[in-house]
Amino acid sequence: MKKSKHAISPSREENFSEWYQQVIRAADLAENSSVRGCMVIKPWGYGIWEQIRDYLNGRIRATGHENAYFPLFIPKHFLEREADHVEGFAKECALVTHSRLVRGEKGLDIADPLEEPLVVRPTSETIIGDSFSRWIQSYRDLPLLINQWANVVRWEMRPRLFLRTSEFLWQEGHTAHATEEEARQEADRMIDEYRRLAEEVLSIPVLVGQKSALERFPGAQETLCIEAMMQDGKALQAATSHFLGQNFARAYDIQFLATDGERRHVWTTSWGATTRLVGALIMTHGDDDGLILPPRVAPLQAVILPILRNNEQENEAILEYAHRLDAALGHVIFAGQTLRKRFDDRDLRGGEKSWGWIKKGVPLILEVGAKEVQEGAVFLRRRDDLSRQSLPLDSFIDQVPQLLQSIQEALLLRARETMRNRTERVTSLDAFRDFFRQRTGFLETFFAPDSAREEEIGKELSVSLRCFPRSDETGPCFCSGRPARLAVWAKSY
Amino acid sequence: MKKSKHAISPSREENFSEWYQQVIRAADLAENSSVRGCMVIKPWGYGIWEQIRDYLNGRIRATGHENAYFPLFIPKHFLEREADHVEGFAKECALVTHSRLVRGEKGLDIADPLEEPLVVRPTSETIIGDSFSRWIQSYRDLPLLINQWANVVRWEMRPRLFLRTSEFLWQEGHTAHATEEEARQEADRMIDEYRRLAEEVLSIPVLVGQKSALERFPGAQETLCIEAMMQDGKALQAATSHFLGQNFARAYDIQFLATDGERRHVWTTSWGATTRLVGALIMTHGDDDGLILPPRVAPLQAVILPILRNNEQENEAILEYAHRLDAALGHVIFAGQTLRKRFDDRDLRGGEKSWGWIKKGVPLILEVGAKEVQEGAVFLRRRDDLSRQSLPLDSFIDQVPQLLQSIQEALLLRARETMRNRTERVTSLDAFRDFFRQRTGFLETFFAPDSAREEEIGKELSVSLRCFPRSDETGPCFCSGRPARLAVWAKSY
Repeated sequence: MKKSKHAISPSREENFSEWYQQVIRAADLAENSSVRGCMVIKPWGYGIWEQIRDYLNGRIRATGHENAYFPLFIPKHFLEREADHVEGFAKECALVTHSRLVRGEKGLDIADPLEEPLVVRPTSETIIGDSFSRWIQSYRDLPLLINQWANVVRWEMRPRLFLRTSEFLWQEGHTAHATEEEARQEADRMIDEYRRLAEEVLSIPVLVGQKSALERFPGAQETLCIEAMMQDGKALQAATSHFLGQNFARAYDIQFLATDGERRHVWTTSWGATTRLVGALIMTHGDDDGLILPPRVAPLQAVILPILRNNEQENEAILEYAHRLDAALGHVIFAGQTLRKRFDDRDLRGGEKSWGWIKKGVPLILEVGAKEVQEGAVFLRRRDDLSRQSLPLDSFIDQVPQLLQSIQEALLLRARETMRNRTERVTSLDAFRDFFRQRTGFLETFFAPDSAREEEIGKELSVSLRCFPRSDETGPCFCSGRPARLAVWAKSY
Repeated sequence: MKKSKHAISPSREENFSEWYQQVIRAADLAENSSVRGCMVIKPWGYGIWEQIRDYLNGRIRATGHENAYFPLFIPKHFLEREADHVEGFAKECALVTHSRLVRGEKGLDIADPLEEPLVVRPTSETIIGDSFSRWIQSYRDLPLLINQWANVVRWEMRPRLFLRTSEFLWQEGHTAHATEEEARQEADRMIDEYRRLAEEVLSIPVLVGQKSALERFPGAQETLCIEAMMQDGKALQAATSHFLGQNFARAYDIQFLATDGERRHVWTTSWGATTRLVGALIMTHGDDDGLILPPRVAPLQAVILPILRNNEQENEAILEYAHRLDAALGHVIFAGQTLRKRFDDRDLRGGEKSWGWIKKGVPLILEVGAKEVQEGAVFLRRRDDLSRQSLPLDSFIDQVPQLLQSIQEALLLRARETMRNRTERVTSLDAFRDFFRQRTGFLETFFAPDSAREEEIGKELSVSLRCFPRSDETGPCFCSGRPARLAVWAKSY
């Protein structure tokens, strides 16, 4: 039987969507559960999320926000108070209606109906708005800067692991301010934090921009987003930050006594990033051998594999040498933290062990066998380019931080290159149609906001307006000819 | 108007239960939400939980467990597979029955009924058992050591903040082993970890013991627990660890191929600790001025309060001096971590500021005014005993770690003293009745397991058998006279 050259089948080229599923399986990241649309996040996948969370949590705190926790359930009538908001989420609500099971003739029956159904939170503007209306009395209570790490539920008809699941994990920031300007600055600041997370930690280049009215968060006045490009040329919305104006302040009666003695509604924002980022990592960096992780987000940055044979004396020397390498790595600092490493002495064949870690995307795979002991060397496989080389142990240890940094940067550069190669600009509707009939990628046009037109074009070509990127460029709208800002369109996840 | 000498009214003596609510309010820990039985955990309360979580998460990892995440929802038929388990939780299940809201005549109506109702997880043995049955194939996959940080829901008829809420936060460990002995050792190891958490981090002394059949976790073969005593003499179960035998392995078909080629069911455990620990902290250490926090679990271990007057030049010198103190504290290490501190220069009167932090339970409150600048001193209030003293700045900085350690230990000693003073031993049923008719506290008796008797006595006196503590002592059962182990009874939360 001929074995495939690569670990993942099909390849990205052959079937990107099936490749994605196979990488998740090969890297042991997650699985579908017995509950439709809900996933089980396995330790390696959860470990990646923990890295994202720890970094982001540090930044959220450093920018003055405090963590808190609000109820999972939202009374139905709460959701109804903000009209656009409820329209946006009504179609995908999990509803709790009963509070007890009783033994019936054929197993357990539901009992004790609730007076009012409860919605399992799809997002928490409403229930947090209710608390804010109690917490905020005067200008002294502002700004109020709160964040929550939580699970949320949006009923998904076409679930995909990490990308669209009925339950997902996220953080949601919620802030209240005395002035419009301050609230707008907050929304800007947080989208910039997300950009930093994406580019500096996840090595995912992103467009920062503004959503069109059609794509805005239900209830927001403005939605900012970061948009990434996956290797198949499709866009993925990686995080959003909303300026909510006074919509929720009015709906939940959040008022404050201003310095001038007047009572005014506050201005609010909300912003979130989710476990979907793990999906973005897979589709940005993965190759036909599996996952590739940027070092800053890898649960393990290096694995040490002693390669043993049938020679006990030799094996003893190899193990001792491998432990020396392990100990030396214990002192390495990368990105302000102790190196995350594992000594893997499981009783498996060397090839099997290496492939396991390659599929999981560990940046540095270090093998030591008899040859390395003899030469005082380390045999290094770099996951990003699969290059292999033998390095003297001492100088290797000194180089680890630079090696990791160079992997971190190489991945970002490679992804930028992909994005650049698949971004084009057109000025006519014909050229627009031609592009999307033949290709996937980001298409730039000048476009004067027009929701009807946007929807029509989007439906015709199965694309959407991803964002109006931060840019001062203006030109004639590709539909109406009116003066317009730059817009980016793409097929999307 | 005469002002009370203490910050909290009523006092513990006057009304312990109302005092508890008032401490939560004064320390700004949590509040009831608009959803019955669900609480909002405010930043200071959540900060305490984060400290507990970070410590415990570190220990869970250090003992070889990996974090993962499983679905919030459990199909109803899953719960039915383990008979005892479902009996235990059926009475308090939140049930999701619909997945959509549609616009009706009078607002929104629920729509799209699910084929099968979903239970919002009250605990995850069932859904994790389902995953384990796929993950475990051979002895090589064992032991499987998994932990999850999550929210769970148990419908509460008489909710109390932190102690009994319909939704609460916790970690739940779930492990599978090849042998009974290994699984029992795991359950033991984890109850010991909880004891360490309680005593070393929370300064809460606990009894470690075994639950009676009546008080066991539904589906467990053995439940280990740590029991703490609150200042009113009532017991609080602070954490549990369950040896589940092969009950769940059989119900969810978790089998492995053993080294001898036979397929066998695994042996499983589960163990958990919840946000209820915050309630335990309040009721173990709090006094009539509010919360008292052991330093290892305090979100802030020291606050620096510059005390300003109406003299600009003087104020400048005070602020400069206070910043010097702040900077020096930045180098202090306690319990392996950088000191958690805050510089509080809010524009409030000095007294108001100090009282705010006293009510929140911050271990060290440091005031600097004109006098301190002149003397090169720091005015220190110790929260545990409310002692006040002036110390030279330099020697104070050196003493901070010892000061914190002495507070940490003093609180444990004080709580031990309370427990000792309110623990008695009786040998007859009459003496047993006498005790509980007059007092609250822990009552030791020799008791030969007898569920009917236990239930009867418990109902009569509104007490329960808290545990059979770890002890080799035996004696004649206070009911039957048969040889028996020591048991501890109490009223409880």
